[in-house]
Amino acid sequence: MRRFFDPAQLAHAPLYELWNGAQSPYADTPERAQIILAAIGGAERPQDRGIAPLLRVHDAAYLDALQRVPDLWREAGRAGDAIPYAFPVHRRAQQLTRVDALLGRHAFDTVTPITPQAFTASYAGAQAALAAAQAVLDGDRAAFALCRPPGHHAGRDYCGGYCHINAAAVAAQAARDAGVGRVAILDIDYHHGNGTQDIFWGRGDVFFASVHADPATDYPFYWGHPGEAGEGDGHGATLNLPLPHGTRLDAFRRAQAIALDAIGRFDPGLLVVSFGADTWEGDPISHFALTTPDYAVLARDIARADWPTVIVMEGGYAAGALGHNVASFLSGF
Amino acid sequence: MRRFFDPAQLAHAPLYELWNGAQSPYADTPERAQIILAAIGGAERPQDRGIAPLLRVHDAAYLDALQRVPDLWREAGRAGDAIPYAFPVHRRAQQLTRVDALLGRHAFDTVTPITPQAFTASYAGAQAALAAAQAVLDGDRAAFALCRPPGHHAGRDYCGGYCHINAAAVAAQAARDAGVGRVAILDIDYHHGNGTQDIFWGRGDVFFASVHADPATDYPFYWGHPGEAGEGDGHGATLNLPLPHGTRLDAFRRAQAIALDAIGRFDPGLLVVSFGADTWEGDPISHFALTTPDYAVLARDIARADWPTVIVMEGGYAAGALGHNVASFLSGF
Repeated sequence: MRRFFDPAQLAHAPLYELWNGAQSPYADTPERAQIILAAIGGAERPQDRGIAPLLRVHDAAYLDALQRVPDLWREAGRAGDAIPYAFPVHRRAQQLTRVDALLGRHAFDTVTPITPQAFTASYAGAQAALAAAQAVLDGDRAAFALCRPPGHHAGRDYCGGYCHINAAAVAAQAARDAGVGRVAILDIDYHHGNGTQDIFWGRGDVFFASVHADPATDYPFYWGHPGEAGEGDGHGATLNLPLPHGTRLDAFRRAQAIALDAIGRFDPGLLVVSFGADTWEGDPISHFALTTPDYAVLARDIARADWPTVIVMEGGYAAGALGHNVASFLSGF
Repeated sequence: MRRFFDPAQLAHAPLYELWNGAQSPYADTPERAQIILAAIGGAERPQDRGIAPLLRVHDAAYLDALQRVPDLWREAGRAGDAIPYAFPVHRRAQQLTRVDALLGRHAFDTVTPITPQAFTASYAGAQAALAAAQAVLDGDRAAFALCRPPGHHAGRDYCGGYCHINAAAVAAQAARDAGVGRVAILDIDYHHGNGTQDIFWGRGDVFFASVHADPATDYPFYWGHPGEAGEGDGHGATLNLPLPHGTRLDAFRRAQAIALDAIGRFDPGLLVVSFGADTWEGDPISHFALTTPDYAVLARDIARADWPTVIVMEGGYAAGALGHNVASFLSGF
């Protein structure tokens, strides 16, 4: 299986995140990518396909803000990484210029600093996803994009959850634009893929199914409840399957089977898998209980339907097991 | 002039705020109230009029969250004060139970910790405002409520900007409920009174006029722009007069005169003044340039129209001058 990664993705290294009222170590370290690279035997550097494919799922004003905010932050006399503190939850003016207003307008949490390298690193990760999509469009059975930083919490005009650019959405849209009539996204990261859901919320041509921790107990809290099913043309093209803390393989596999059945009825020409290894039993910020061999089982279940498959890396924060878990998953294809 | 304050207001003492990516000293210290008390020669303790007057402008679910969140925070195993990190900016589920979801749902920033005493202290401050309103309804020309914590950033269902309960809105609504047909609120704190504006946004019986720092450069960023004028029955009953950094008495006085003219045309039976001393030239978090004697000038301009007037304390963070500035303002009535 071809694998794609750009060293530019390593440059985004926030000093910390703000979580539970304090500075906390940033979970999405560059080391994550290096660990995975070592476990899967390296990766090809993707071709740069430019910003146009990113603009198909993100607003230009948002991508502009991601690039300008670090300079505005320093011009305001501040050290460290840009982190918002005020959010337009209740009213939203449109003409915003102040760095704090831009930050709050284009984010939904304080755990996603915008470093000077946030845009370039996430841009490079999206290029890896585009390269993997192209490999599959060119006839490969499956391809892997080592997207670190991850992407599935980023919406059309906002960042969050360590994500700035939604690589899975970029890849899915690129497949649509290449002529694939129906694309499905299966998100099996521990956390709900709120950004991906929002991007395709009103569309019937991209199906989004997610198996994740119940938002009643887990981040991102405001999305991923069972009733969320899409709107308009997209009504019925979103499927949320939340699971409780302690979930093991059997329950996860049953939920994934429900998602795969729904995707089967949708009959996609291409599948994008948002894969997180933070469902592993020892993950430091998550509460499921999958084992390393379980990932191969889940992957074989996905591979059985034989859809051309683009695998995009999302979360997974247990440094010691991360490489093995990703390798196990990829071995199932 | 009668003055009201309850010692219970002192108990809310957050350890710090999260601002510009780091822990920062909490600006709204209990000491602020003690400084003002000393400068104005003490205050009467207000009668407790219960929670019903607060529920006239705040949602029950919000007041409930203010009281439950500190316990939920500790039950989640966390030390310190409750501070949100994720906000429902882009989608908002209704059934939220997790402490982080409740926090983000009912706040718009990270500078307003919910301490175990946040509710009781703010509740007591609202009682001070109700007592001042009653004094004026009973015939006094003017009365002063030393509301610390302040209130004008708190909306119907959210806290923010050091504010949990909107004392000015509680007082204005109490006057309406006591039979005053039209009530005006003049907000001359440095920061826009977004919570007060939101609470009365759709109503024509309460006029809200605010002179404040331009939200293009200053907190709360998302409210207080000139075009915001109310909606529905409230269209035209909101007036925003933003001013630039460095504003001195002449420019501030002209803006206040425009606000007073509009209030005069509204012809209120009672005026609530949200008074902030953070417009002072040496305020540590603000950028206007009023002097201590200027506050007496502004107060005399307000007093000239002879509306029965409830003065509610909002911001002002320069410990050395705060008492003098408040005393100067009150001297004008």
